[in-house]
Amino acid sequence: MALNKERRIGRHAVLLLLSDESEGELERLRQLDWIGCKGKVGSMEAHKVVAAIETAAKKNGIIQPDLYRESHALYHAIMEALHGVTRGQVQLGSVHRTVGLTFAVLRGNPYENAQEGDWIAVSLYGTIGAPVKGSEHEAIGLGVNHI
Amino acid sequence: MALNKERRIGRHAVLLLLSDESEGELERLRQLDWIGCKGKVGSMEAHKVVAAIETAAKKNGIIQPDLYRESHALYHAIMEALHGVTRGQVQLGSVHRTVGLTFAVLRGNPYENAQEGDWIAVSLYGTIGAPVKGSEHEAIGLGVNHI
Amino acid sequence: MALNKERRIGRHAVLLLLSDESEGELERLRQLDWIGCKGKVGSMEAHKVVAAIETAAKKNGIIQPDLYRESHALYHAIMEALHGVTRGQVQLGSVHRTVGLTFAVLRGNPYENAQEGDWIAVSLYGTIGAPVKGSEHEAIGLGVNHI
Amino acid sequence: MALNKERRIGRHAVLLLLSDESEGELERLRQLDWIGCKGKVGSMEAHKVVAAIETAAKKNGIIQPDLYRESHALYHAIMEALHGVTRGQVQLGSVHRTVGLTFAVLRGNPYENAQEGDWIAVSLYGTIGAPVKGSEHEAIGLGVNHI
Amino acid sequence: MALNKERRIGRHAVLLLLSDESEGELERLRQLDWIGCKGKVGSMEAHKVVAAIETAAKKNGIIQPDLYRESHALYHAIMEALHGVTRGQVQLGSVHRTVGLTFAVLRGNPYENAQEGDWIAVSLYGTIGAPVKGSEHEAIGLGVNHI
Amino acid sequence: MALNKERRIGRHAVLLLLSDESEGELERLRQLDWIGCKGKVGSMEAHKVVAAIETAAKKNGIIQPDLYRESHALYHAIMEALHGVTRGQVQLGSVHRTVGLTFAVLRGNPYENAQEGDWIAVSLYGTIGAPVKGSEHEAIGLGVNHI
Repeated sequence: MALNKERRIGRHAVLLLLSDESEGELERLRQLDWIGCKGKVGSMEAHKVVAAIETAAKKNGIIQPDLYRESHALYHAIMEALHGVTRGQVQLGSVHRTVGLTFAVLRGNPYENAQEGDWIAVSLYGTIGAPVKGSEHEAIGLGVNHI
Repeated sequence: MALNKERRIGRHAVLLLLSDESEGELERLRQLDWIGCKGKVGSMEAHKVVAAIETAAKKNGIIQPDLYRESHALYHAIMEALHGVTRGQVQLGSVHRTVGLTFAVLRGNPYENAQEGDWIAVSLYGTIGAPVKGSEHEAIGLGVNHI
Repeated sequence: MALNKERRIGRHAVLLLLSDESEGELERLRQLDWIGCKGKVGSMEAHKVVAAIETAAKKNGIIQPDLYRESHALYHAIMEALHGVTRGQVQLGSVHRTVGLTFAVLRGNPYENAQEGDWIAVSLYGTIGAPVKGSEHEAIGLGVNHI
Repeated sequence: MALNKERRIGRHAVLLLLSDESEGELERLRQLDWIGCKGKVGSMEAHKVVAAIETAAKKNGIIQPDLYRESHALYHAIMEALHGVTRGQVQLGSVHRTVGLTFAVLRGNPYENAQEGDWIAVSLYGTIGAPVKGSEHEAIGLGVNHI
Repeated sequence: MALNKERRIGRHAVLLLLSDESEGELERLRQLDWIGCKGKVGSMEAHKVVAAIETAAKKNGIIQPDLYRESHALYHAIMEALHGVTRGQVQLGSVHRTVGLTFAVLRGNPYENAQEGDWIAVSLYGTIGAPVKGSEHEAIGLGVNHI
Repeated sequence: MALNKERRIGRHAVLLLLSDESEGELERLRQLDWIGCKGKVGSMEAHKVVAAIETAAKKNGIIQPDLYRESHALYHAIMEALHGVTRGQVQLGSVHRTVGLTFAVLRGNPYENAQEGDWIAVSLYGTIGAPVKGSEHEAIGLGVNHI
């Protein structure tokens, strides 16, 4: 039932995010029979971050748009990743801060047991800070859910 | 006042963590005039995670043990990183879960302006789950603070 | 000082909510000398849920509109019920989700000791989910406060 | 993709909990091809509540004990239900309070679309309060997750 | 319905706490027909802070020990004050920190309208920090509730 | 490394806030070589409270506006103070409530060791409640951070 070392989906989702050339990463992921995407979003509103990731995941065929169980899995993975970025209150502009984020979404089975089925990982990396250029530091988040 | 692209301290702290051979990473960090360390901790008690990181940071000379302002900066960076790992309630055994984590602590100036002085980044990566082998998934956290 | 089994105000508030024919429930409540009401609210904004319940409670004479202690008791009962519905962050549209709720408010003494005076129970039941028809699941909440 | 009115799993999980004679409820649930169980737990420690529900769900065949994805789904449903009971901090004895709860776990598909597959609902009802007999009021919680 | 300027119960509760000679403060409070007490508690466990305040309030006749509605009002005021002290998670030793606090509890009507009845204010002031002498800074909290 | 009794920065920040004649307080603070300011803000939006305090701190020379580390220290002190005022969710209008606050910001070294350098304290005092005149009670908050 253990995590497969080569298939650590969260680690891959973060490396994909931090990689300056994501092609090598994406190539390795395809070999694992996984599906993934990468995108960017900047906003003072958390719901726009959520929506941008949902849209990208649907457009790239990572989740089936007409199955609620898949949207539900993705939504919770996004919210968990946002906890890492916001560290306390999942709020941005309402507490006078903004984010500029890169995100990645990966879908695949990270476990040795094939019956564990698909899981989804959402990773976020970027900056958070005051709505003033340069007044920001880095933040990261990862959400992992069964799908 | 902007973040220096080469000096993104959070990104380095996470890559150091995820790297299978941390030596290359550590070498690059020394060239930036930064100081860092890496360690491991597994526990059902959040306070043991906090203590393990604090001890490592002091033993490796990353913070001055007799200056409270440095401990204070580190403590808040640890707590922020724990938010990413716990995603909601900074609790482990009290909500029936345990973690096995690798941590890294980095200290240096990530900004172009030398007057921004030192900042500290604490990164956490590992697994969180039920106290049953294999019943776990990955988690990550990053805390960044001025020191 | 114990709760009176027949007078479990939270249980009644929830059953009133879930009942398809609330008349039987309301009849039993009147016999307990209790006062209650039931209503509906759908919104992406938590403050509209709060306002809808406050308005209904005042219009139905459940709280005295010109006594702040009664509004204060009701407000905290509503907020506690919203914790059950939102499960983590008392946020709706700001994290890209919406609710469709039925609510009930009950006022009476659930304890055997008459000196315990009036208490207020606010119950919420309905759906929460993405702002897309069908992309939602059920949620429930209950807040109980002395008044 | 909508919720099927007869198959509102959260509503059933709560009614099963509040019913003085759960047999009628359980009978209706079996006809829906659902599986469920009901139990009791009292504790000052949240992790004991989690463990009691997990044990009951496994013993009654509601989740497969050797599939982590099923334990993971259940765990998050339990934590969400605990949010409704604790309303702010998922803590009991550590903030000087205790619970006496009845719980129910239900598994089945609440949606009209068969492809939505199984979902799990965890409901909690009981009292929360000071560790003094009678110094308590009612609380309720519901967690719903795809499985 | 407004707060009476001379009767701002929270302000009095805080000044009583910060005063080096609390006698003058207590004298003024008696003239307002209010009842209050002051005490100290240091602990790594939040439940001991709660218990110390509850015990002091009962021993000094501020709440009636056999009325749950009064304990309930006090409990929530204590928890709210602890939010100010802990600023995020109502946890102490479990996140490796300890407090040394002075507390005050005041009971009276702060409003111009006599029908607003009694309210209770709990104030906390002291230090929070690592379990190491000197590694701490100040913290304050105030909870106000109708009783 | 201990806090200097005369230099308890949080206590001073609160007394400055509660004082009807802040001149005496400000005079004592200047003698400690500290810098401070006092202001007012009323809003249903938390970000306006944050912005008002940041603006006042910059205008009064308490923080250097072009050093992010100083803005960062102030921001976290403000957020911590807001936890005391909001007691659970750092939200105002979104949960149907408003605040009328006085704030103070102080900068100086509260420790006996000169190497502890400057710290910043943000104190908040005022009322929180429904957006209806008189339907409010007092609240207080204090945030302390190294700068």
